[in-house]
Amino acid sequence: MNETKKKVNAAIIIIGNEILSGRTQDVNVVAISSWLNELGVKLEEVRVIPDIENSIIQTIKEVRKKFNYVFTTGGIGPTHDDITSQSIAKAFNIKYGYHKEAYKILEKYYGKDKFSYGRKKMAKIPIKASLILNPSSGAPGFIVENVYCLPGVPSILKSMLGGLNNKIKGGKKVLSKTIRAQTVESEIAKSLEKVQVKFKKVEIGSYPFFRLGKIGVSLVIRSSEKKQIDDCYKQIVNFLKKKQISITER
Amino acid sequence: MNETKKKVNAAIIIIGNEILSGRTQDVNVVAISSWLNELGVKLEEVRVIPDIENSIIQTIKEVRKKFNYVFTTGGIGPTHDDITSQSIAKAFNIKYGYHKEAYKILEKYYGKDKFSYGRKKMAKIPIKASLILNPSSGAPGFIVENVYCLPGVPSILKSMLGGLNNKIKGGKKVLSKTIRAQTVESEIAKSLEKVQVKFKKVEIGSYPFFRLGKIGVSLVIRSSEKKQIDDCYKQIVNFLKKKQISITER
Repeated sequence: MNETKKKVNAAIIIIGNEILSGRTQDVNVVAISSWLNELGVKLEEVRVIPDIENSIIQTIKEVRKKFNYVFTTGGIGPTHDDITSQSIAKAFNIKYGYHKEAYKILEKYYGKDKFSYGRKKMAKIPIKASLILNPSSGAPGFIVENVYCLPGVPSILKSMLGGLNNKIKGGKKVLSKTIRAQTVESEIAKSLEKVQVKFKKVEIGSYPFFRLGKIGVSLVIRSSEKKQIDDCYKQIVNFLKKKQISITER
Repeated sequence: MNETKKKVNAAIIIIGNEILSGRTQDVNVVAISSWLNELGVKLEEVRVIPDIENSIIQTIKEVRKKFNYVFTTGGIGPTHDDITSQSIAKAFNIKYGYHKEAYKILEKYYGKDKFSYGRKKMAKIPIKASLILNPSSGAPGFIVENVYCLPGVPSILKSMLGGLNNKIKGGKKVLSKTIRAQTVESEIAKSLEKVQVKFKKVEIGSYPFFRLGKIGVSLVIRSSEKKQIDDCYKQIVNFLKKKQISITER
Protein backbone atom coordinates (compact mmCIF):
# COMPACT_ATOMS: atom_id res chain seq x y z
CA MET A 1 0.00 0.00 0.00
CA ASN A 2 1.34 3.41 -0.93
CA GLU A 3 1.14 5.45 2.27
CA THR A 4 1.78 8.70 0.43
CA LYS A 5 -1.40 8.45 -1.62
CA LYS A 6 -4.10 10.95 -0.81
CA LYS A 7 -7.78 10.38 -0.28
CA VAL A 8 -9.66 10.54 -3.56
CA ASN A 9 -13.43 10.96 -3.49
CA ALA A 10 -16.40 10.90 -5.82
CA ALA A 11 -20.10 11.64 -6.10
CA ILE A 12 -22.83 10.13 -8.27
CA ILE A 13 -25.66 12.16 -9.77
CA ILE A 14 -28.53 9.94 -10.87
CA ILE A 15 -30.62 11.80 -13.42
CA GLY A 16 -34.01 10.20 -13.76
CA ASN A 17 -37.67 10.78 -12.99
CA GLU A 18 -38.16 7.01 -13.07
CA ILE A 19 -35.99 6.58 -9.97
CA LEU A 20 -37.74 9.40 -8.09
CA SER A 21 -41.21 8.12 -8.98
CA GLY A 22 -40.37 4.73 -7.45
CA ARG A 23 -41.02 3.01 -10.77
CA THR A 24 -37.43 1.87 -11.16
CA GLN A 25 -35.11 0.49 -8.50
CA ASP A 26 -31.66 2.03 -8.87
CA VAL A 27 -28.84 -0.51 -8.94
CA ASN A 28 -26.16 1.69 -10.46
CA VAL A 29 -24.95 3.13 -7.14
CA VAL A 30 -23.84 -0.30 -5.92
CA ALA A 31 -22.18 -1.04 -9.28
CA ILE A 32 -20.25 2.24 -9.47
CA SER A 33 -19.37 2.30 -5.78
CA SER A 34 -18.00 -1.26 -5.80
CA TRP A 35 -15.94 -0.46 -8.89
CA LEU A 36 -14.62 2.76 -7.28
CA ASN A 37 -13.62 0.88 -4.11
CA GLU A 38 -11.33 -1.29 -6.20
CA LEU A 39 -9.72 1.80 -7.67
CA GLY A 40 -9.19 3.47 -4.29
CA VAL A 41 -11.88 6.11 -4.75
CA LYS A 42 -14.39 6.72 -1.98
CA LEU A 43 -17.97 7.49 -2.92
CA GLU A 44 -19.05 10.27 -0.55
CA GLU A 45 -22.38 11.51 -1.91
CA VAL A 46 -25.20 10.49 -4.20
CA ARG A 47 -27.96 12.71 -5.51
CA VAL A 48 -31.01 11.65 -7.43
CA ILE A 49 -32.50 14.54 -9.39
CA PRO A 50 -35.27 14.90 -12.00
CA ASP A 51 -34.86 15.28 -15.77
CA ILE A 52 -35.05 19.07 -15.47
CA GLU A 53 -32.39 21.15 -17.18
CA ASN A 54 -31.93 23.66 -14.41
CA SER A 55 -31.67 20.97 -11.72
CA ILE A 56 -28.98 19.19 -13.72
CA ILE A 57 -26.99 22.37 -14.37
CA GLN A 58 -27.10 23.58 -10.77
CA THR A 59 -26.31 20.16 -9.31
CA ILE A 60 -23.36 19.60 -11.64
CA LYS A 61 -21.94 23.04 -10.87
CA GLU A 62 -22.21 22.52 -7.13
CA VAL A 63 -21.16 18.89 -6.83
CA ARG A 64 -18.19 18.91 -9.20
CA LYS A 65 -16.45 21.49 -7.02
CA LYS A 66 -16.69 19.29 -3.94
CA PHE A 67 -15.42 15.97 -5.30
CA ASN A 68 -12.51 14.68 -7.36
CA TYR A 69 -14.80 12.70 -9.66
CA VAL A 70 -18.48 13.03 -10.50
CA PHE A 71 -20.40 10.32 -12.32
CA THR A 72 -23.79 10.96 -13.84
CA THR A 73 -26.14 8.18 -14.88
CA GLY A 74 -29.08 8.49 -17.25
CA GLY A 75 -30.45 10.89 -19.79
CA ILE A 76 -28.05 10.28 -22.70
CA GLY A 77 -30.39 8.26 -24.91
CA PRO A 78 -32.22 9.28 -28.10
CA THR A 79 -35.58 10.51 -26.77
CA HIS A 80 -36.89 13.97 -25.82
CA ASP A 81 -36.51 13.24 -22.09
CA ASP A 82 -32.78 12.61 -22.49
CA ILE A 83 -31.39 16.05 -21.69
CA THR A 84 -28.21 15.27 -19.79
CA SER A 85 -25.79 16.01 -22.66
CA GLN A 86 -27.09 19.48 -23.45
CA SER A 87 -27.41 20.30 -19.75
CA ILE A 88 -23.79 19.34 -19.10
CA ALA A 89 -22.71 21.57 -22.00
CA LYS A 90 -24.65 24.44 -20.41
CA ALA A 91 -23.20 23.73 -16.95
CA PHE A 92 -19.70 24.11 -18.41
CA ASN A 93 -20.70 26.81 -20.89
CA ILE A 94 -19.22 24.85 -23.78
CA LYS A 95 -20.49 24.01 -27.25
CA TYR A 96 -23.03 21.21 -27.74
CA GLY A 97 -23.50 19.54 -31.12
CA TYR A 98 -22.42 16.60 -33.24
CA HIS A 99 -19.23 15.13 -31.82
CA LYS A 100 -17.17 13.96 -34.80
CA GLU A 101 -15.83 10.78 -33.25
CA ALA A 102 -19.16 9.85 -31.63
CA TYR A 103 -20.92 10.45 -34.97
CA LYS A 104 -18.51 8.12 -36.76
CA ILE A 105 -18.84 5.41 -34.12
CA LEU A 106 -22.64 5.50 -34.26
CA GLU A 107 -22.81 5.70 -38.06
CA LYS A 108 -20.58 2.64 -38.24
CA TYR A 109 -22.53 0.82 -35.52
CA TYR A 110 -25.96 1.30 -37.15
CA GLY A 111 -24.92 1.57 -40.80
CA LYS A 112 -25.53 4.71 -42.89
CA ASP A 113 -29.04 3.64 -43.94
CA LYS A 114 -30.26 3.07 -40.42
CA PHE A 115 -28.60 6.07 -38.82
CA SER A 116 -31.91 7.79 -38.05
CA TYR A 117 -32.88 11.08 -36.38
CA GLY A 118 -33.07 9.49 -32.92
CA ARG A 119 -29.78 7.69 -33.30
CA LYS A 120 -28.02 10.81 -34.53
CA LYS A 121 -29.12 12.60 -31.37
CA MET A 122 -26.87 10.30 -29.38
CA ALA A 123 -23.87 11.81 -31.22
CA LYS A 124 -24.85 15.23 -29.92
CA ILE A 125 -22.79 15.94 -26.84
CA PRO A 126 -20.33 18.65 -25.81
CA ILE A 127 -18.24 18.67 -29.00
CA LYS A 128 -14.86 18.67 -27.27
CA ALA A 129 -15.68 15.97 -24.72
CA SER A 130 -13.60 12.78 -24.47
CA LEU A 131 -15.63 9.67 -25.16
CA ILE A 132 -16.35 6.70 -22.93
CA LEU A 133 -16.63 3.73 -25.25
CA ASN A 134 -19.68 1.49 -25.08
CA PRO A 135 -18.93 -2.15 -25.88
CA SER A 136 -22.55 -3.27 -25.56
CA SER A 137 -24.75 -0.87 -27.52
CA GLY A 138 -22.65 1.62 -29.47
CA ALA A 139 -23.66 4.99 -28.03
CA PRO A 140 -20.72 6.38 -26.08
CA GLY A 141 -20.70 8.21 -22.78
CA PHE A 142 -18.42 11.21 -22.34
CA ILE A 143 -16.12 13.09 -20.03
CA VAL A 144 -15.92 16.84 -19.43
CA GLU A 145 -13.22 17.76 -16.91
CA ASN A 146 -14.07 15.75 -13.77
CA VAL A 147 -17.59 14.84 -14.85
CA TYR A 148 -18.16 11.37 -16.34
CA CYS A 149 -21.50 10.83 -18.07
CA LEU A 150 -22.82 7.29 -18.25
CA PRO A 151 -26.12 5.77 -19.41
CA GLY A 152 -28.86 4.69 -17.01
CA VAL A 153 -29.41 1.14 -18.25
CA PRO A 154 -27.47 -0.95 -15.69
CA SER A 155 -26.13 -3.64 -18.03
CA ILE A 156 -24.79 -1.04 -20.47
CA LEU A 157 -23.36 1.11 -17.70
CA LYS A 158 -21.52 -1.85 -16.19
CA SER A 159 -20.03 -2.80 -19.56
CA MET A 160 -18.55 0.71 -19.84
CA LEU A 161 -16.86 0.98 -16.43
CA GLY A 162 -13.90 -1.29 -17.22
CA GLY A 163 -12.83 0.99 -20.07
CA LEU A 164 -12.46 3.85 -17.57
CA ASN A 165 -10.02 2.11 -15.23
CA ASN A 166 -6.95 3.86 -16.64
CA LYS A 167 -8.65 7.27 -16.55
CA ILE A 168 -9.35 7.25 -12.82
CA LYS A 169 -6.44 8.04 -10.52
CA GLY A 170 -7.33 6.38 -7.25
CA GLY A 171 -5.89 7.01 -3.83
CA LYS A 172 -5.52 4.74 -0.86
CA LYS A 173 -7.76 1.77 -1.24
CA VAL A 174 -10.32 1.32 1.52
CA LEU A 175 -10.16 -2.17 2.96
CA SER A 176 -12.82 -3.82 5.05
CA LYS A 177 -13.42 -6.77 7.29
CA THR A 178 -16.83 -7.95 8.45
CA ILE A 179 -17.83 -9.77 11.63
CA ARG A 180 -21.28 -11.32 11.83
CA ALA A 181 -22.35 -11.60 15.44
CA GLN A 182 -25.44 -13.40 16.68
CA THR A 183 -26.69 -10.65 18.92
CA VAL A 184 -28.66 -7.41 18.84
CA GLU A 185 -27.08 -3.98 18.55
CA SER A 186 -28.09 -2.77 21.98
CA GLU A 187 -26.17 -5.63 23.67
CA ILE A 188 -22.87 -4.54 22.18
CA ALA A 189 -23.32 -0.79 21.72
CA LYS A 190 -21.24 0.27 24.74
CA SER A 191 -18.31 -2.08 24.08
CA LEU A 192 -18.30 -1.22 20.41
CA GLU A 193 -18.20 2.48 21.16
CA LYS A 194 -15.16 1.94 23.41
CA VAL A 195 -13.33 0.21 20.56
CA GLN A 196 -14.29 2.92 18.06
CA VAL A 197 -12.89 5.62 20.35
CA LYS A 198 -9.49 3.86 20.33
CA PHE A 199 -9.26 3.59 16.54
CA LYS A 200 -9.46 7.02 14.97
CA LYS A 201 -8.50 5.83 11.48
CA VAL A 202 -11.06 3.07 11.41
CA GLU A 203 -14.77 3.37 10.67
CA ILE A 204 -16.85 0.74 12.43
CA GLY A 205 -20.34 0.33 11.04
CA SER A 206 -23.00 -1.69 12.82
CA TYR A 207 -25.86 -3.11 10.74
CA PRO A 208 -28.61 -5.31 12.12
CA PHE A 209 -29.84 -8.05 9.81
CA PHE A 210 -32.89 -10.28 9.80
CA ARG A 211 -32.41 -13.04 7.29
CA LEU A 212 -33.45 -16.64 6.92
CA GLY A 213 -35.08 -16.54 10.34
CA LYS A 214 -31.90 -15.42 12.07
CA ILE A 215 -31.22 -12.08 13.63
CA GLY A 216 -27.75 -10.69 14.01
CA VAL A 217 -25.48 -7.72 13.56
CA SER A 218 -22.90 -7.21 10.83
CA LEU A 219 -19.95 -5.22 12.10
CA VAL A 220 -18.02 -3.71 9.23
CA ILE A 221 -14.53 -2.37 9.91
CA ARG A 222 -13.28 -0.05 7.18
CA SER A 223 -9.95 1.72 6.87
CA SER A 224 -7.17 2.27 4.37
CA GLU A 225 -4.73 0.83 6.91
CA LYS A 226 -4.71 -2.94 7.17
CA LYS A 227 -2.89 -3.09 10.52
CA GLN A 228 -5.54 -0.86 12.10
CA ILE A 229 -8.31 -3.09 10.76
CA ASP A 230 -6.62 -6.22 12.11
CA ASP A 231 -6.06 -4.72 15.57
CA CYS A 232 -9.60 -3.39 15.72
CA TYR A 233 -10.96 -6.75 14.56
CA LYS A 234 -9.15 -8.54 17.40
CA GLN A 235 -10.55 -6.21 20.04
CA ILE A 236 -14.10 -6.64 18.77
CA VAL A 237 -13.77 -10.41 18.61
CA ASN A 238 -12.38 -10.37 22.17
CA PHE A 239 -15.31 -8.55 23.71
CA LEU A 240 -17.78 -10.66 21.74
CA LYS A 241 -16.15 -13.81 23.15
CA LYS A 242 -16.26 -12.39 26.70
CA LYS A 243 -19.96 -11.77 26.23
CA GLN A 244 -20.34 -15.34 24.88
CA ILE A 245 -21.77 -14.04 21.64
CA SER A 246 -21.15 -16.41 18.76
CA ILE A 247 -19.59 -15.22 15.55
CA THR A 248 -20.64 -16.50 12.16
CA GLU A 249 -18.01 -16.77 9.51
CA ARG A 250 -18.53 -14.38 6.60
CA MET B 1 -59.73 14.97 -8.12
CA ASN B 2 -59.51 18.28 -6.33
CA GLU B 3 -58.27 20.76 -8.94
CA THR B 4 -57.52 23.43 -6.34
CA LYS B 5 -54.87 21.35 -4.62
CA LYS B 6 -51.32 22.53 -4.95
CA LYS B 7 -48.24 20.56 -5.78
CA VAL B 8 -46.66 19.09 -2.67
CA ASN B 9 -43.09 17.82 -2.84
CA ALA B 10 -40.59 15.91 -0.77
CA ALA B 11 -36.97 14.86 -0.54
CA ILE B 12 -35.29 11.84 1.04
CA ILE B 13 -31.94 11.99 2.83
CA ILE B 14 -30.39 8.55 3.19
CA ILE B 15 -27.85 8.63 5.99
CA GLY B 16 -25.53 5.68 5.74
CA ASN B 17 -21.94 4.77 4.93
CA GLU B 18 -23.15 1.28 4.06
CA ILE B 19 -25.10 2.59 1.07
CA LEU B 20 -22.20 4.74 -0.16
CA SER B 21 -19.70 1.89 0.19
CA GLY B 22 -21.85 -0.27 -2.06
CA ARG B 23 -22.21 -2.86 0.69
CA THR B 24 -25.96 -2.39 1.00
CA GLN B 25 -28.48 -1.93 -1.80
CA ASP B 26 -30.93 0.82 -0.85
CA VAL B 27 -34.56 -0.17 -1.25
CA ASN B 28 -36.10 2.56 0.91
CA VAL B 29 -36.37 5.12 -1.88
CA VAL B 30 -38.80 2.94 -3.83
CA ALA B 31 -40.81 2.20 -0.66
CA ILE B 32 -41.11 5.83 0.42
CA SER B 33 -41.68 7.16 -3.08
CA SER B 34 -44.46 4.67 -3.85
CA TRP B 35 -46.14 5.52 -0.54
CA LEU B 36 -45.82 9.27 -1.24
CA ASN B 37 -47.35 8.84 -4.71
CA GLU B 38 -50.48 7.45 -3.08
CA LEU B 39 -50.67 10.49 -0.80
CA GLY B 40 -50.22 12.99 -3.65
CA VAL B 41 -46.68 14.00 -2.71
CA LYS B 42 -44.00 14.09 -5.39
CA LEU B 43 -40.49 12.96 -4.51
CA GLU B 44 -38.18 15.48 -6.18
CA GLU B 45 -34.74 14.77 -4.75
CA VAL B 46 -32.77 12.09 -2.95
CA ARG B 47 -29.40 12.50 -1.30
CA VAL B 48 -27.22 9.78 0.13
CA ILE B 49 -24.74 11.15 2.65
CA PRO B 50 -22.24 9.62 5.09
CA ASP B 51 -22.66 9.24 8.87
CA ILE B 52 -20.81 12.49 9.49
CA GLU B 53 -22.38 15.05 11.80
CA ASN B 54 -21.55 18.09 9.75
CA SER B 55 -22.80 16.52 6.52
CA ILE B 56 -26.11 15.68 8.17
CA ILE B 57 -26.54 19.14 9.69
CA GLN B 58 -25.72 21.02 6.48
CA THR B 59 -27.83 18.75 4.28
CA ILE B 60 -30.86 18.99 6.58
CA LYS B 61 -30.60 22.78 6.77
CA GLU B 62 -30.37 23.11 2.99
CA VAL B 63 -32.87 20.51 1.86
CA ARG B 64 -35.66 21.25 4.33
CA LYS B 65 -35.99 24.77 2.96
CA LYS B 66 -36.56 23.51 -0.57
CA PHE B 67 -39.22 20.85 0.00
CA ASN B 68 -42.50 20.48 1.86
CA TYR B 69 -41.44 17.24 3.47
CA VAL B 70 -38.05 15.71 4.15
CA PHE B 71 -37.62 12.08 5.15
CA THR B 72 -34.38 10.78 6.59
CA THR B 73 -33.53 7.10 6.78
CA GLY B 74 -30.91 5.50 8.98
CA GLY B 75 -28.77 6.36 11.95
CA ILE B 76 -31.34 6.19 14.76
CA GLY B 77 -30.26 2.88 16.28
CA PRO B 78 -28.33 2.20 19.50
CA THR B 79 -24.71 2.13 18.32
CA HIS B 80 -21.96 4.79 18.14
CA ASP B 81 -22.41 5.19 14.39
CA ASP B 82 -26.06 6.20 14.84
CA ILE B 83 -25.75 9.96 14.99
CA THR B 84 -28.85 11.13 13.13
CA SER B 85 -30.84 12.15 16.23
CA GLN B 86 -28.22 14.40 17.77
CA SER B 87 -27.35 15.86 14.36
CA ILE B 88 -31.00 16.76 13.71
CA ALA B 89 -31.15 18.47 17.12
CA LYS B 90 -28.08 20.49 16.16
CA ALA B 91 -29.50 21.34 12.73
CA PHE B 92 -32.56 22.85 14.43
CA ASN B 93 -30.60 24.16 17.43
CA ILE B 94 -32.96 22.39 19.84
CA LYS B 95 -32.37 20.28 22.92
CA TYR B 96 -31.35 16.62 22.57
CA GLY B 97 -31.86 14.16 25.42
CA TYR B 98 -34.22 11.56 26.82
CA HIS B 99 -37.64 12.02 25.25
CA LYS B 100 -40.18 11.19 27.97
CA GLU B 101 -42.68 9.39 25.78
CA ALA B 102 -40.01 7.51 23.79
CA TYR B 103 -38.35 6.46 27.05
CA LYS B 104 -41.65 5.05 28.37
CA ILE B 105 -42.36 3.20 25.13
CA LEU B 106 -38.93 1.58 25.07
CA GLU B 107 -38.90 0.76 28.78
CA LYS B 108 -42.24 -0.96 28.36
CA TYR B 109 -41.14 -2.73 25.17
CA TYR B 110 -37.95 -4.21 26.66
CA GLY B 111 -38.95 -4.42 30.34
CA LYS B 112 -37.17 -2.44 33.07
CA ASP B 113 -34.51 -5.15 33.61
CA LYS B 114 -33.49 -5.33 30.01
CA PHE B 115 -33.58 -1.61 29.30
CA SER B 116 -29.81 -1.39 28.76
CA TYR B 117 -27.41 1.43 27.89
CA GLY B 118 -27.76 0.82 24.17
CA ARG B 119 -31.53 0.62 24.27
CA LYS B 120 -31.80 3.80 26.33
CA LYS B 121 -29.84 5.62 23.64
CA MET B 122 -32.77 5.10 21.28
CA ALA B 123 -34.90 7.27 23.62
CA LYS B 124 -32.44 10.12 23.12
CA ILE B 125 -33.81 12.36 20.42
CA PRO B 126 -34.79 16.04 20.22
CA ILE B 127 -36.83 16.20 23.44
CA LYS B 128 -39.77 18.08 21.97
CA ALA B 129 -40.08 16.00 18.78
CA SER B 130 -43.32 14.21 17.90
CA LEU B 131 -42.90 10.48 17.68
CA ILE B 132 -43.43 8.13 14.76
CA LEU B 133 -44.60 4.87 16.27
CA ASN B 134 -42.83 1.65 15.40
CA PRO B 135 -45.14 -1.39 15.31
CA SER B 136 -42.36 -3.84 14.53
CA SER B 137 -39.45 -3.22 16.89
CA GLY B 138 -40.35 -0.61 19.50
CA ALA B 139 -37.89 2.22 18.87
CA PRO B 140 -39.81 5.17 17.49
CA GLY B 141 -38.87 7.58 14.73
CA PHE B 142 -39.55 11.28 15.18
CA ILE B 143 -40.67 14.48 13.53
CA VAL B 144 -39.17 17.96 13.88
CA GLU B 145 -41.07 20.54 11.81
CA ASN B 146 -41.00 19.20 8.23
CA VAL B 147 -38.29 16.59 8.85
CA TYR B 148 -39.39 12.99 9.42
CA CYS B 149 -36.72 10.65 10.78
CA LEU B 150 -37.09 6.96 10.00
CA PRO B 151 -34.87 3.93 10.56
CA GLY B 152 -32.75 2.38 7.83
CA VAL B 153 -33.87 -1.24 8.14
CA PRO B 154 -36.36 -1.60 5.26
CA SER B 155 -38.88 -3.90 6.96
CA ILE B 156 -39.08 -1.65 10.03
CA LEU B 157 -39.28 1.50 7.95
CA LYS B 158 -42.13 0.10 5.87
CA SER B 159 -44.08 -0.87 8.98
CA MET B 160 -43.92 2.74 10.19
CA LEU B 161 -45.10 4.54 7.05
CA GLY B 162 -48.79 3.68 7.45
CA GLY B 163 -48.91 5.45 10.81
CA LEU B 164 -47.86 8.67 9.10
CA ASN B 165 -50.68 8.78 6.55
CA ASN B 166 -52.73 11.30 8.52
CA LYS B 167 -49.72 13.55 9.16
CA ILE B 168 -48.89 14.11 5.50
CA LYS B 169 -51.05 16.62 3.64
CA GLY B 170 -50.78 15.61 0.03
CA GLY B 171 -51.62 17.61 -3.05
CA LYS B 172 -52.74 16.55 -6.47
CA LYS B 173 -52.07 12.90 -6.97
CA VAL B 174 -49.83 12.05 -9.89
CA LEU B 175 -51.41 9.45 -12.12
CA SER B 176 -49.63 7.37 -14.69
CA LYS B 177 -50.23 5.08 -17.62
CA THR B 178 -47.62 2.85 -19.23
CA ILE B 179 -47.35 1.61 -22.80
CA ARG B 180 -44.91 -1.18 -23.57
CA ALA B 181 -43.87 -1.00 -27.19
CA GLN B 182 -41.81 -3.62 -29.01
CA THR B 183 -39.36 -1.23 -30.56
CA VAL B 184 -36.19 0.68 -29.82
CA GLU B 185 -36.11 4.28 -28.61
CA SER B 186 -34.47 5.72 -31.71
CA GLU B 187 -37.36 4.46 -33.92
CA ILE B 188 -39.92 6.51 -32.03
CA ALA B 189 -37.90 9.45 -30.68
CA LYS B 190 -39.13 12.00 -33.23
CA SER B 191 -42.83 11.08 -33.02
CA LEU B 192 -42.68 10.94 -29.24
CA GLU B 193 -41.12 14.38 -29.06
CA LYS B 194 -43.95 15.78 -31.21
CA VAL B 195 -46.52 14.40 -28.77
CA GLN B 196 -44.61 15.70 -25.74
CA VAL B 197 -44.56 19.21 -27.22
CA LYS B 198 -48.39 19.17 -27.45
CA PHE B 199 -48.94 18.14 -23.83
CA LYS B 200 -47.34 20.64 -21.49
CA LYS B 201 -48.91 19.18 -18.35
CA VAL B 202 -47.82 15.66 -19.09
CA GLU B 203 -44.42 14.12 -18.52
CA ILE B 204 -43.58 11.35 -20.97
CA GLY B 205 -40.72 9.13 -19.91
CA SER B 206 -39.11 6.64 -22.27
CA TYR B 207 -37.28 3.66 -20.76
CA PRO B 208 -35.69 0.89 -22.80
CA PHE B 209 -35.91 -2.58 -21.33
CA PHE B 210 -34.15 -5.84 -22.00
CA ARG B 211 -35.93 -8.61 -20.20
CA LEU B 212 -36.60 -12.27 -20.79
CA GLY B 213 -34.89 -12.07 -24.15
CA LYS B 214 -37.15 -9.30 -25.41
CA ILE B 215 -36.22 -5.73 -26.06
CA GLY B 216 -38.70 -2.92 -25.90
CA VAL B 217 -39.48 0.54 -24.60
CA SER B 218 -41.74 1.43 -21.70
CA LEU B 219 -43.44 4.74 -22.27
CA VAL B 220 -44.67 6.20 -19.02
CA ILE B 221 -47.18 9.04 -19.15
CA ARG B 222 -47.44 10.95 -15.87
CA SER B 223 -49.66 13.86 -14.94
CA SER B 224 -52.06 14.94 -12.24
CA GLU B 225 -54.75 15.38 -14.92
CA LYS B 226 -56.41 12.19 -16.09
CA LYS B 227 -57.91 13.66 -19.26
CA GLN B 228 -54.46 14.81 -20.39
CA ILE B 229 -53.03 11.35 -19.80
CA ASP B 230 -55.83 9.71 -21.77
CA ASP B 231 -55.48 12.10 -24.73
CA CYS B 232 -51.71 11.74 -24.75
CA TYR B 233 -52.03 7.95 -24.51
CA LYS B 234 -54.26 7.88 -27.61
CA GLN B 235 -51.83 9.93 -29.66
CA ILE B 236 -48.91 7.70 -28.74
CA VAL B 237 -50.87 4.53 -29.50
CA ASN B 238 -51.88 6.05 -32.85
CA PHE B 239 -48.38 6.72 -34.04
CA LEU B 240 -47.18 3.32 -32.81
CA LYS B 241 -49.95 1.67 -34.86
CA LYS B 242 -49.03 3.70 -37.94
CA LYS B 243 -45.45 2.50 -37.55
CA GLN B 244 -46.76 -1.08 -37.14
CA ILE B 245 -45.10 -1.37 -33.76
CA SER B 246 -46.85 -3.86 -31.51
CA ILE B 247 -47.91 -2.92 -28.01
CA THR B 248 -47.71 -5.35 -25.14
CA GLU B 249 -50.35 -5.09 -22.46
CA ARG B 250 -49.01 -3.98 -19.08
